[in-house]
Amino acid sequence: MRASNPELKILKKIFILQDLEEAELVDVRAASVPREFSAGSVILTEGDPGEQMYILLAGEVEVTKRLLLPIDRTALLERIMNRLNSGDGVTLGEMALIENDVRSANVTASTDCRMLELSKEKALLLFNQNPAMGVKILFRLSQLLSKRLRKSDEDIVKLTTALVVALER
Amino acid sequence: MRASNPELKILKKIFILQDLEEAELVDVRAASVPREFSAGSVILTEGDPGEQMYILLAGEVEVTKRLLLPIDRTALLERIMNRLNSGDGVTLGEMALIENDVRSANVTASTDCRMLELSKEKALLLFNQNPAMGVKILFRLSQLLSKRLRKSDEDIVKLTTALVVALER
Repeated sequence: MRASNPELKILKKIFILQDLEEAELVDVRAASVPREFSAGSVILTEGDPGEQMYILLAGEVEVTKRLLLPIDRTALLERIMNRLNSGDGVTLGEMALIENDVRSANVTASTDCRMLELSKEKALLLFNQNPAMGVKILFRLSQLLSKRLRKSDEDIVKLTTALVVALER
Repeated sequence: MRASNPELKILKKIFILQDLEEAELVDVRAASVPREFSAGSVILTEGDPGEQMYILLAGEVEVTKRLLLPIDRTALLERIMNRLNSGDGVTLGEMALIENDVRSANVTASTDCRMLELSKEKALLLFNQNPAMGVKILFRLSQLLSKRLRKSDEDIVKLTTALVVALER
């Protein structure tokens, strides 16, 4: 399936696709399947297995994450909120391209959403057919994960400090 | 410089090099520079810039990390400890291959150490000359970072839970 111009414009904004030539973006588009999610529907569920990455072409999604271990006294688990819209160059579930693990967050459609779904299988095929494109995508994916890791490690230092202060009261 | 057999045996144990053919390991070895660190010397300093990854060929290192924000009352900052030895297939500073950021931990030589140093520049050259090898290395590097990210995110959930419990006392 050929990529339309507005779609290519969105693909160019995607962090892990930013180094690709236009012809390579067209190949990524061709390896993907269009998906529609209506407002309110669940796209990814934390803890579920998953082998697809999603690119948000139109609409807005909400990302939530379990923040607390289930402890007796709190019936409600708190969640971190994040709202992302298609103008931001959003990928969801991109860790599925490189591992066999469960989803690390919940994603819900806040509005009707149009997505591209790229399976791990199709991504590996693309990397195999065009390793130079594979290097470009995996290099940026590593950067994305490394940025997130540094952010999480900073949060751990902050939380540990807060915990020490709380316990010393 | 040719890779000796014992060196190749260690390179084969390195997580991010595990999918490489022997000839590719020889290329990684050829792109690297041998380095020696005497017992007690500092290899990496948290917060310092760095553009090299290290492979531990012989010896043992200690990895430490700042655990607390500098708060007035605690003169001593606590640290997480980790001891790694050359039999474990150890890479240090591998995030430097894909970003321009500071070191995320301190590494000290516990014994005399023999290392291979691979610069970001040389790694990019390798990926460029042999993109299929680049895909294999960057795929595993993404996996490594994604595993660490999941571990850090679990620690955040645990610490947040502990903090909520501590504040409710």
